[in-house]
Amino acid sequence: MKNNYKQKYDELYTYFNGILDKYYDNLKDIPEPLLSAMKYSVKSAGKRIRPVLALYSCELFCKDKSVADYLAIALETVHCYSLVHDDMPEMDNDTIRRGKPTVHVAYGQGMALLTGDSLLSQAYECLFNSFKKCKEISVLNDCYAEFASYIGSTGMVAGQCVDITANKDYSLEYIHLKKTSALLSCGLVCGAMLGGAKAEDITKLRTFGEKVGLAFQITDDILDLIGDSTKIGKSIGKDDAEGKITYPSVYGLEKSKEIARSLINEAIDCVSDMDEEGFLVGFAQSIINRQF
Amino acid sequence: MKNNYKQKYDELYTYFNGILDKYYDNLKDIPEPLLSAMKYSVKSAGKRIRPVLALYSCELFCKDKSVADYLAIALETVHCYSLVHDDMPEMDNDTIRRGKPTVHVAYGQGMALLTGDSLLSQAYECLFNSFKKCKEISVLNDCYAEFASYIGSTGMVAGQCVDITANKDYSLEYIHLKKTSALLSCGLVCGAMLGGAKAEDITKLRTFGEKVGLAFQITDDILDLIGDSTKIGKSIGKDDAEGKITYPSVYGLEKSKEIARSLINEAIDCVSDMDEEGFLVGFAQSIINRQF
Repeated sequence: MKNNYKQKYDELYTYFNGILDKYYDNLKDIPEPLLSAMKYSVKSAGKRIRPVLALYSCELFCKDKSVADYLAIALETVHCYSLVHDDMPEMDNDTIRRGKPTVHVAYGQGMALLTGDSLLSQAYECLFNSFKKCKEISVLNDCYAEFASYIGSTGMVAGQCVDITANKDYSLEYIHLKKTSALLSCGLVCGAMLGGAKAEDITKLRTFGEKVGLAFQITDDILDLIGDSTKIGKSIGKDDAEGKITYPSVYGLEKSKEIARSLINEAIDCVSDMDEEGFLVGFAQSIINRQF
Repeated sequence: MKNNYKQKYDELYTYFNGILDKYYDNLKDIPEPLLSAMKYSVKSAGKRIRPVLALYSCELFCKDKSVADYLAIALETVHCYSLVHDDMPEMDNDTIRRGKPTVHVAYGQGMALLTGDSLLSQAYECLFNSFKKCKEISVLNDCYAEFASYIGSTGMVAGQCVDITANKDYSLEYIHLKKTSALLSCGLVCGAMLGGAKAEDITKLRTFGEKVGLAFQITDDILDLIGDSTKIGKSIGKDDAEGKITYPSVYGLEKSKEIARSLINEAIDCVSDMDEEGFLVGFAQSIINRQF
């Protein structure tokens, strides 16, 4: 197996930013300042992990990755909707995002609410263009249904609900699976579906996304505790100061590192037989290789 | 032409409340208080105009109106999402809706934000079930695309944006078409599509929805000025007190009544050849027969 993770990531990242810009620059009939606010959110410099995973996942099963173009744009659009709403005063009340003032700071709270709403519908509107390249109705409809289930009341919104209400009926794992793993699995699963993957491979990719997302969140919590703020690019010790329940606070530091490593190994086992370019393996390894 | 508008409305209203309750009572894996808040919004006593129009429109072209069941539930769900977000403090700051405390009053502002987000995604998730009864991929995908375009950045959200920012580049007509007509046309157009209507008939229904929505908003503004608050069930004179631009404030009272009447006549002309039961005609007439 090759492992040109970095090179492949850069290739897909550049490709994705190209199609994203083109899509948003061609939107018409949207009044100002709504259009500006949508672009302000979507075009800011993100890592584009979700769309990159969707494009790669499609490419595993189909030579033409452009089948997943609209899915990739839809995923990043959904990610941005969730950031705009999560940053609002009634939620996390964050004022800086990707190095710029958050949307509610730049455009006001009412416009931030509308911008998030607008991005969420835009994501679906964009996704429906997948019909241009995929004409199999059951594949397409299953893909749409998967997308919605990862995003709505049983997916991302469910995680955010449990998080803000501190509902004790649900575990920390549940929150991470819904808030972080959901959109990773969504990209992998829907990308594979549009690429024509078999059910068996789709299941492997779904599990890979779950485990990697969980490991990502655990390492994030570890870095918040022991990381070097200059290297990870954000302030540390925030969870501890807020008395937030995290993997390290529940299981201790060493046990948390062990859990993260196990999850990554399990994730790699899921996909090693299909990941010819070693991209998914490289991506999984990069998660626990962040500064510890 | 018959005119059993009232009887038909009651029949479709009862049918719709049955399928709505069943759909929401069968939702699973949604954490509390999110599920309760969604039901609190959706199950409150609304007039169900949009789903009733969607079901009737489908029935015009297809004996089995249940083809539009999920579309109808999706439409009411979208309507409720827009009410939950519009009522929030950063928008209209309303505390009472359909005779009950608004969602942000009953569940808090953060949960209201999530409830609206959740309802919006639920609407799409619900809509995708239309696949169970309609297997024509291009019809289905066109219907989904129409739905999204009426709801998102070029539809309802566009109208709300222009309204709250008082953007002078757009007319009052634009705001009403986007905020009020959009969901009426959406139900009529998508219902007809799922029922197998021809393009020509879909166009007529789209125009009917636009004109009727506009007339509805104009009569609303007139009633706010001259209506009897005990008869129309809400406080009057609010627009005037807030210095809001309305049809009566721009064109005067008599001219506004004339415009509303003309719109209703034009709307009726659009559909009179297909509306065998006289339901759409009755519906259109009921709009200007409200207390003036």
